Amino acid sequence: MNDLNNLIERATEMKENGMHLGQIADELNLSRETITWLLMHAEKKEGLRAPTDMSIDWRSIGESSYRMRCIADAVADMIVDGVGDRAEIDVVVGIAVSGIPLASIVATELGARLAIFHPNKQLFGTENADATGIFSHNFADVSDAECVIVDDVITTGGTLKETIRELTAIGAKPAAIAVLVDKRGDGAIEGVPVYSLLRTLWVG
Amino acid sequence: MNDLNNLIERATEMKENGMHLGQIADELNLSRETITWLLMHAEKKEGLRAPTDMSIDWRSIGESSYRMRCIADAVADMIVDGVGDRAEIDVVVGIAVSGIPLASIVATELGARLAIFHPNKQLFGTENADATGIFSHNFADVSDAECVIVDDVITTGGTLKETIRELTAIGAKPAAIAVLVDKRGDGAIEGVPVYSLLRTLWVG
Repeated sequence: MNDLNNLIERATEMKENGMHLGQIADELNLSRETITWLLMHAEKKEGLRAPTDMSIDWRSIGESSYRMRCIADAVADMIVDGVGDRAEIDVVVGIAVSGIPLASIVATELGARLAIFHPNKQLFGTENADATGIFSHNFADVSDAECVIVDDVITTGGTLKETIRELTAIGAKPAAIAVLVDKRGDGAIEGVPVYSLLRTLWVG
Repeated sequence: MNDLNNLIERATEMKENGMHLGQIADELNLSRETITWLLMHAEKKEGLRAPTDMSIDWRSIGESSYRMRCIADAVADMIVDGVGDRAEIDVVVGIAVSGIPLASIVATELGARLAIFHPNKQLFGTENADATGIFSHNFADVSDAECVIVDDVITTGGTLKETIRELTAIGAKPAAIAVLVDKRGDGAIEGVPVYSLLRTLWVG
C-alpha cells in the first residue's frame, strides 16, 4: 500500500533525525501507538496488527500564507459563532508545534493575545505521567484569562486534555477548542466544546 | 461505537425518505460499498465485516456562508497556483449535488462560468455501466472549454473518472480537479492533477 510505505518512510526519517515519538505523532497527525507500529513495521518486527488510523495531510493549506489566512478566517469565525462574543476571548492558546501558525493568525483575527503551550508529548519521547507541559515565557501569560485553544488536528484528544488541565491549574478559563480536523468526531473534551472545520466519523 | 450508530441512523433515514444508494454515498462522503454495509447492518443481517471507511463531515463550513467563502477563496487560490494562469479557466464544473455550492463560489472567485454535472450515481440507485451522467442545460455549456472540476470530497475517485470521460467526450479539457478532502491521498485521476486542501493517508 502506497500510503503506508510513504508514512513508514517519513516516520523513519524523522526518527533517524532525532525526533521523539510524540514529535513524530504531531507531525503526521497520528497517535503515538500508530507511530510505534509504523517504526516497528519499518524494522521488520512482525506480529502486531496495523492499527486503524489515518494521517491528515494539510500541506496544501500550510504551504501558502494566503490559504492559511483564508482558513484562519474561517476558524476565527467559527470560534466567535461558538463562544458568542469576540470580546470574551483574551488569549488564544496555540499548541506546539503544529498548532502554532494557525493559532498565531487566529489571534490576530480575534484581536487577542497569543500564548503557546508545549505539551508533554513534545518534551519527552514517551509519556511521563508526572511531567506537565510548559507555557512559553516568550508569549502572553494566560493565567486567569478567558481563552480559546487552537490546534491543527485532534487525534486522540490526549494533548488537549493535558492542556485544559494545565490551563485550569493556573486559573485560565478555556471557552472553546478550535481545530481544522477532529478525528474523534466528538463534541467536547473535559467539558470544553470542540469546534472543527471538518470531522471524521469512522466505519468499521 | 457512537460514530457507527450515528451513520447507520442517518443512512437508514435517507433510504426511508427515498434516496438512492449513490445519493446517500454523496451525502455521507462514503463509498457505495460502505453504504450497502451500513444499511445491511441496520437490518441486522450479519455476516459481513465492516469495511474500513470514514465519513467526512464538513457541516461547520457548509452551515456558514462566510466560512464557505473563506474556504472557496482558498480552493480558488489552490487552483490558480496549480493551473498557473487564471485566464486559462473558462468553466468550473461542479459535481451534483454536494459539490455545487463550493463550485458556484469558486466560479465567481475565478471569474469563470459554472457548469453542473449530474454523475450516474445521482441518477441510479445502483451502478449502470451503460448510463452516462448528464450536464445540466440550466448552466454553462462546457463543450470544447478549458475547465476545472470542483467537488467536496473524493472517496474512490469513481465519480471523477466518469466526469473526466464525459468532459473529454464533448471536447472539454479538464486542467485540474479541486476538492476539500481527498480520501484516496493520491495525486491524479485519469492524468488530471488533483488539488485538495486536505488529504488522508491510511494506516492499516
